[in-house]
Amino acid sequence: MRVLAFLDGTLANPEVPHIRVDDLGLLRGDGIFETVLIAGGKPRELRPHLDRLARSASMLDLPEPDDDAWQRVTQLVLDNWTAGDEFALKLVYTRGVEGDPTAAPTGFAMGLPIDDKVIRARAEGVAAVTLDRGIDPGLAERSPWLLLGAKSLSYAINMAAVREAARRGASDVIFTATDGSVLEGPTSNVVVARGRTLYTPPATIGILPGTTQAAVFRGAERIGWTTKIEPLSVEDLRDNDGLFLASSVRKLTRVHTLDGQELPDSSGVHAELAKAYEDVYA
Amino acid sequence: MRVLAFLDGTLANPEVPHIRVDDLGLLRGDGIFETVLIAGGKPRELRPHLDRLARSASMLDLPEPDDDAWQRVTQLVLDNWTAGDEFALKLVYTRGVEGDPTAAPTGFAMGLPIDDKVIRARAEGVAAVTLDRGIDPGLAERSPWLLLGAKSLSYAINMAAVREAARRGASDVIFTATDGSVLEGPTSNVVVARGRTLYTPPATIGILPGTTQAAVFRGAERIGWTTKIEPLSVEDLRDNDGLFLASSVRKLTRVHTLDGQELPDSSGVHAELAKAYEDVYA
Repeated sequence: MRVLAFLDGTLANPEVPHIRVDDLGLLRGDGIFETVLIAGGKPRELRPHLDRLARSASMLDLPEPDDDAWQRVTQLVLDNWTAGDEFALKLVYTRGVEGDPTAAPTGFAMGLPIDDKVIRARAEGVAAVTLDRGIDPGLAERSPWLLLGAKSLSYAINMAAVREAARRGASDVIFTATDGSVLEGPTSNVVVARGRTLYTPPATIGILPGTTQAAVFRGAERIGWTTKIEPLSVEDLRDNDGLFLASSVRKLTRVHTLDGQELPDSSGVHAELAKAYEDVYA
Repeated sequence: MRVLAFLDGTLANPEVPHIRVDDLGLLRGDGIFETVLIAGGKPRELRPHLDRLARSASMLDLPEPDDDAWQRVTQLVLDNWTAGDEFALKLVYTRGVEGDPTAAPTGFAMGLPIDDKVIRARAEGVAAVTLDRGIDPGLAERSPWLLLGAKSLSYAINMAAVREAARRGASDVIFTATDGSVLEGPTSNVVVARGRTLYTPPATIGILPGTTQAAVFRGAERIGWTTKIEPLSVEDLRDNDGLFLASSVRKLTRVHTLDGQELPDSSGVHAELAKAYEDVYA
């Protein structure tokens, strides 16, 4: 099933068209989004997701999202979802119709079932490849018009990178910067475990601040782990006790193979961290 | 007026929704486009535009566009346009509905009136700023998954750059690479005149091959100019007899001010080249 609701509070049939061909979200990828996990019938990290939506809006000079309206539309989709207590909720906010300065932004929330592929990735982990993102870690702060770290609808590169991974026999990607530092996945944050410390790179290098990564860090801290937000190098992707990708719907996913080479088994570390993450919501 | 026709040959009302919320063109900026100038009732450079559409499709692993269907839908919009003999024709081709592997791509052509702002820019020229694009000229060939040089729907950066230009009192942008070489505008190619030679950078550095730039070069060659496709440096943007941005709808537009500094008057050169370009279609 799919449940669709617009920001004005109207439910709509997702199987029929609702978007004009001249919506700038379509014509220019000019908009932003969030994907929220609904588990046990409740949204996870909704506050951080809405904060990040507002941050992305600001980076794209979009009107500030109406926080109350997004909370209401989230609840509306939840109230109308009848296919189990776990699903993905997509929030989409575009600049609206081209050439009409009075046009309101287009905003909707859509509930979607979770793919079997995602369920498998959670259990079995994924093979990933490193791919050059072609930028240096200082670029985001120097050149904000490049929208590095905004969750925009302009995700064609991210999708192309995943197709490149498939060509290389993998299903996910870790982007690297020109100086060999680690950035993020196309739809995830990179988390490295070493001893009882978790690492992830800082958002200032031009990546999305991770909502799930932050939740995993909170959970790990509760069970006595140390967490560090600091630059990682490609060497750190191998020199560790566990390499993970954190994303809302896939949660903390183990990377079992990197660039075609099997990594040491990190299932034990993964199990401990996955439990710590779930316990955040217990 | 606006005239909308889908790739299957059906005319549609552009004022009502035709796109599903889960179209990947919207959700991921996952699609491609072209903008064709219709002048004197005829499409200009339709063949190069359709060739470039096919090139972009290949870069994004989209199904090969049906060339005949695009020609037919172009003609259909032309046949139904009644608001004068000059307008813009947008061709849009997306990956279609998410999660449905049998879904056909979404394809449509839309006729749009030409903005007053564009008409003014043709006559008066524009102020532009240089903005760092954060990439090096070898990146496109090294890392094709970055889709540099594909005309994708993921144009949020291009739009953000134009907003940054507006904040700096200008209306257009010339992107530069990390080594100081000149790339392109967000929706145009850079052309420099020096003596009776025209220069533009090669597409291999990760920019769109220009349809209008190529037409201007053909026109200039016919009146005895030399044309060169070679790397340009930011110094070349000042050290010349004319700096121009070439794009389908704006044609060859003079840059009269760069980074807040007025450039020497190039109206004479512009008039000669603009005539040579028009004569290509005479």
